[in-house]
Amino acid sequence: MVIVMDHNATEEQIQTVMQRLEAAGYRAHLSRGVERTIIGAIGDETQLGDAGIEMLPGVANVIPIMHPYKLASRIMREEGTVITIGDVEIGGETVQVMAGPCAVESKEQLFEVAEKIRASGARILRGGAYKPRTSPYSFQGLAEKGLQLLAEAREKYGLLIVTEVMDPRTLPLVAEYADIIQIGTRNMQNFYLLREVGRYQKPVLLKRGLSATIEEWLMAAEYILSEGNPNVILCERGIRTFETYTRNTLDLSAVPVIKHFSHLPVIVDPSHGIGKFRFVPPMAVAAVAAGADGVMLEVHPNPVEALCDGAQSLTPKKFAKTMRQMAGVARAIGRKM
Amino acid sequence: MVIVMDHNATEEQIQTVMQRLEAAGYRAHLSRGVERTIIGAIGDETQLGDAGIEMLPGVANVIPIMHPYKLASRIMREEGTVITIGDVEIGGETVQVMAGPCAVESKEQLFEVAEKIRASGARILRGGAYKPRTSPYSFQGLAEKGLQLLAEAREKYGLLIVTEVMDPRTLPLVAEYADIIQIGTRNMQNFYLLREVGRYQKPVLLKRGLSATIEEWLMAAEYILSEGNPNVILCERGIRTFETYTRNTLDLSAVPVIKHFSHLPVIVDPSHGIGKFRFVPPMAVAAVAAGADGVMLEVHPNPVEALCDGAQSLTPKKFAKTMRQMAGVARAIGRKM
Amino acid sequence: MVIVMDHNATEEQIQTVMQRLEAAGYRAHLSRGVERTIIGAIGDETQLGDAGIEMLPGVANVIPIMHPYKLASRIMREEGTVITIGDVEIGGETVQVMAGPCAVESKEQLFEVAEKIRASGARILRGGAYKPRTSPYSFQGLAEKGLQLLAEAREKYGLLIVTEVMDPRTLPLVAEYADIIQIGTRNMQNFYLLREVGRYQKPVLLKRGLSATIEEWLMAAEYILSEGNPNVILCERGIRTFETYTRNTLDLSAVPVIKHFSHLPVIVDPSHGIGKFRFVPPMAVAAVAAGADGVMLEVHPNPVEALCDGAQSLTPKKFAKTMRQMAGVARAIGRKM
Amino acid sequence: MVIVMDHNATEEQIQTVMQRLEAAGYRAHLSRGVERTIIGAIGDETQLGDAGIEMLPGVANVIPIMHPYKLASRIMREEGTVITIGDVEIGGETVQVMAGPCAVESKEQLFEVAEKIRASGARILRGGAYKPRTSPYSFQGLAEKGLQLLAEAREKYGLLIVTEVMDPRTLPLVAEYADIIQIGTRNMQNFYLLREVGRYQKPVLLKRGLSATIEEWLMAAEYILSEGNPNVILCERGIRTFETYTRNTLDLSAVPVIKHFSHLPVIVDPSHGIGKFRFVPPMAVAAVAAGADGVMLEVHPNPVEALCDGAQSLTPKKFAKTMRQMAGVARAIGRKM
Repeated sequence: MVIVMDHNATEEQIQTVMQRLEAAGYRAHLSRGVERTIIGAIGDETQLGDAGIEMLPGVANVIPIMHPYKLASRIMREEGTVITIGDVEIGGETVQVMAGPCAVESKEQLFEVAEKIRASGARILRGGAYKPRTSPYSFQGLAEKGLQLLAEAREKYGLLIVTEVMDPRTLPLVAEYADIIQIGTRNMQNFYLLREVGRYQKPVLLKRGLSATIEEWLMAAEYILSEGNPNVILCERGIRTFETYTRNTLDLSAVPVIKHFSHLPVIVDPSHGIGKFRFVPPMAVAAVAAGADGVMLEVHPNPVEALCDGAQSLTPKKFAKTMRQMAGVARAIGRKM
Repeated sequence: MVIVMDHNATEEQIQTVMQRLEAAGYRAHLSRGVERTIIGAIGDETQLGDAGIEMLPGVANVIPIMHPYKLASRIMREEGTVITIGDVEIGGETVQVMAGPCAVESKEQLFEVAEKIRASGARILRGGAYKPRTSPYSFQGLAEKGLQLLAEAREKYGLLIVTEVMDPRTLPLVAEYADIIQIGTRNMQNFYLLREVGRYQKPVLLKRGLSATIEEWLMAAEYILSEGNPNVILCERGIRTFETYTRNTLDLSAVPVIKHFSHLPVIVDPSHGIGKFRFVPPMAVAAVAAGADGVMLEVHPNPVEALCDGAQSLTPKKFAKTMRQMAGVARAIGRKM
Repeated sequence: MVIVMDHNATEEQIQTVMQRLEAAGYRAHLSRGVERTIIGAIGDETQLGDAGIEMLPGVANVIPIMHPYKLASRIMREEGTVITIGDVEIGGETVQVMAGPCAVESKEQLFEVAEKIRASGARILRGGAYKPRTSPYSFQGLAEKGLQLLAEAREKYGLLIVTEVMDPRTLPLVAEYADIIQIGTRNMQNFYLLREVGRYQKPVLLKRGLSATIEEWLMAAEYILSEGNPNVILCERGIRTFETYTRNTLDLSAVPVIKHFSHLPVIVDPSHGIGKFRFVPPMAVAAVAAGADGVMLEVHPNPVEALCDGAQSLTPKKFAKTMRQMAGVARAIGRKM
Repeated sequence: MVIVMDHNATEEQIQTVMQRLEAAGYRAHLSRGVERTIIGAIGDETQLGDAGIEMLPGVANVIPIMHPYKLASRIMREEGTVITIGDVEIGGETVQVMAGPCAVESKEQLFEVAEKIRASGARILRGGAYKPRTSPYSFQGLAEKGLQLLAEAREKYGLLIVTEVMDPRTLPLVAEYADIIQIGTRNMQNFYLLREVGRYQKPVLLKRGLSATIEEWLMAAEYILSEGNPNVILCERGIRTFETYTRNTLDLSAVPVIKHFSHLPVIVDPSHGIGKFRFVPPMAVAAVAAGADGVMLEVHPNPVEALCDGAQSLTPKKFAKTMRQMAGVARAIGRKM
């Protein structure tokens, strides 16, 4: 980190900072400028901390210069992580599609979607059994019954399943059923839940928090990785801004940024990011163009009757069309689908 | 809600919307304008839902017009809620101060702070035993040991204690020790945790999520209230914006807005909202002026050595001075402290 | 608009609102619900205004339901606007590329870029002669000399030129040289400047304000259109959010949203949107995939020596590669480049 | 500034950066750490620029460490600037109030407000003659006629007047009439206009841009100061966030932050910051508590009939009450009103 001293800092204040840094384990380099004195502190900030420097007299500002994540950093693994589940690879050459309803509502609903998305080429079925809802009066999911239906659909249609866990107490159950465990946007900084999924080896789909910086998102991944689970898939799903014509603002630039700073695979969920079905297909296609390793899409046989998020769900027919467009763009940029 | 039809919607499309609304339990009123036809749907939106109207052909937009919260609404309780714990009232005439360290670090640290804040007039001691930290490598709190120290400080100095719960599995333990259970900003939409604290009668301090709208925050309160716990205290603690000179942007206007729409008490935490100790005192004073029912402040005997959030902590001396300023402003606007 | 009355509004208050609406030229429809009474006001809100209803006693909320733009709305022109300049069409089947340096620095610099981008297939040269700079100490542009160089490059390389106007006093000069007049992000709501460019027939490239909603952006276009200039091209260039790893957050979803609500062409400027050259190419490609009618890119022969925004500029070589990728994606979605 | 090199940067890359920094006029200090090499560049960043370092091979990140403003910095003037106009001081012990209608509508309207605010103790009359309106169809102001009415009100009621300039072409006229020239939020980065007002000696009220960081706002002040006009008053008026219950989010923490980093006076406009009259009084009082040098308030004799921003205007009666509360709080914190 770099410490900028006040323009009128005394020599004694400067020495106090130097001594404190060195006592904390840093090597301190002093640079006296015409206007300001700055001190460079060389050492592992993630281990040594900030040493309380910011509160010392004469200190104007403390600027961290290293990224706080280590295991999630591309430096750890230049070639990029590929997560393999059966014959499905996430983070490899093929762009993977995860599709399905917001919530599992019934066997009929789920199986119809499962059949259709499989026919369109998707390999992973999404569906919520436990639903985080803004209102306590909204449908909260079928719980274990929903997990069972997902497992049945997996068998019948040859799909993998991804479903959300919201509570450490139900994690063992969810982990028993799911191929990929989803951590939702509202739980991105539920650190106890992160640690718990870190103790499994099952792949974890970690959605970006609604107002999380990319750095905080990678730090949330770091929680999982630091417990021993290397199988983390990041999922951009829109951030909160002042714009009101869309539900959120889908930050597609997170894709190349993540690819640069981290080795982890990253996918995009335009359904939640946009929130209006008519704008989802072009953004799904754009996500592939931006370099995403996968796309997650909400598909419902009859969005008008959906118990959850119908307004952002595609019909199976629109989904099939979107699949064809995504595949065309994947080929154009040298990937498969 | 109001349904705006496309400018070229057909008569059949209009009728379909009308019928669907009425089937869902709404009364539907049709208004044909020169440019647009709009349909007013009268009924309890929180119960009847959106009926999937947005996906129907010919529908341009669906606009909710009722607030989605009921129990948290001022309509339910015009006079405002006052929460009484022993001889301390929150939401009454007196502005309450909650003060203490970010994290409980040791008996010495905690007792020194407790003594000093009591001497300055505060009645409630804050201190974290379980700490949500962005980095897995940061100090995570003393856990039950921290709770025990808080309880000892309560006995010795005649204070109430407020401390955070992060996990439903430790809630019984936290509830055993705490006078007020804190739900932190990162858990504002941890709906399982909200439901669990809703099953206790202990007062709950519900911090606003970092990017939560006031409406979502009141809906989080609604989760707790709907489980039977009426003792919810709201706490504004800064929202995330583009500004970088402060850690967050303290939204003091949330105070009069909450007072208008809800009967619940609302307090302000400027320490987290600003993140830099030198800016905390004027914002604490401004919070009182804006009408807050209380102020939460981080105080540490030696911020330079703090294991957590030292940069935003006041020394006991600065805290004492801030107390005097807050008290002066409280009197000026007709309240006590 | 819809007026929601307080739950305890009196009959007299309701009648006052009704009368005031009708006096203002609205037709008012009353709907009495169990919990609330709402009044639908049918009429042209853009002409009739809000009639001061919000301040009347008993009024809880006033909700506008119509978009405030008329001339910019797709309702006015279902088929979409195509702007033709010579043999270049913007808004048609072909995705157009505008490329060039942030600022015109010298003849050598400009001509080298002009030659290279023409060779790579771009038809429009961008370059600033008047530069809006955050700091008064930064390079402010070559002014008229820069315009002259742009005109020379146009002749020599057969390109169109787009350049920014910042001041109504220099507009006549800029309009004399430019094929497309750019209104920059900081001037999106410089209403006098908007009116002035509305009095020309030259195409106007209107960049989205850094924190402008899509609705405000369309209202800025409305200013130009309402003065008689129908040739407005919208340009998404990133909005301001809390994220710090990128300069701004490029809102690609604005592309399909604009296409839905407006008939105007829309292009994307990923250079300013991202601010870091290494992330620009994938976002340029994603912009094409999202349906943009064009892409604007900063290209500099030697970004290290650039007087302005070097960090976001592509070299001619990287630009050529990006052109090939964009062209591939354009074909994949059925467009040309 | 500090340059962080890639973890695998070569010795040659490091030397190239060092040489380039020194050629640009910086002194460069090299610090080799276990994980990273960092280079501190000591020199005047505002003059020397970034030297294109960010694009050099092997460079991971460039971090500026100095504030880019000089004349606006408190370092230039530790004691704080007090602007004196007649017998009114802004930035001194007394908290000044600027009040009046959003727009000058008529002599009757303006004179009624002027009389009432004078009677309540305000010394400065605000009123718009040129109005920046989001819609071209809204009332745009009375132009010079409005300026004349303001001047008449000044004579009659012994007030100073503050009014907005939007266009450099009308600046001579506005400057002739106004005691304080206002630069509105939409023109905070209209750099030509900033330079023009910098050539006058009249005090300038510089409103914060809707999404301007405090640093950008101080840089806008720097434009004015660098042209020779030292009389700049900063005005916080709300920033754009995701919250929708208020028109903007009033960032009161900007007050102590500005006071710390700059010597310029800072006032607060809660009317635009909140946008709803009922929430304006507590925020006006909070602004005084936060340390603002003044408060700007919209007052209209009959808000229901206002041609502009009625919903955020106070009646003269509510204004008088707010004045008394502000005065009480000013006294409580040791200031006058």
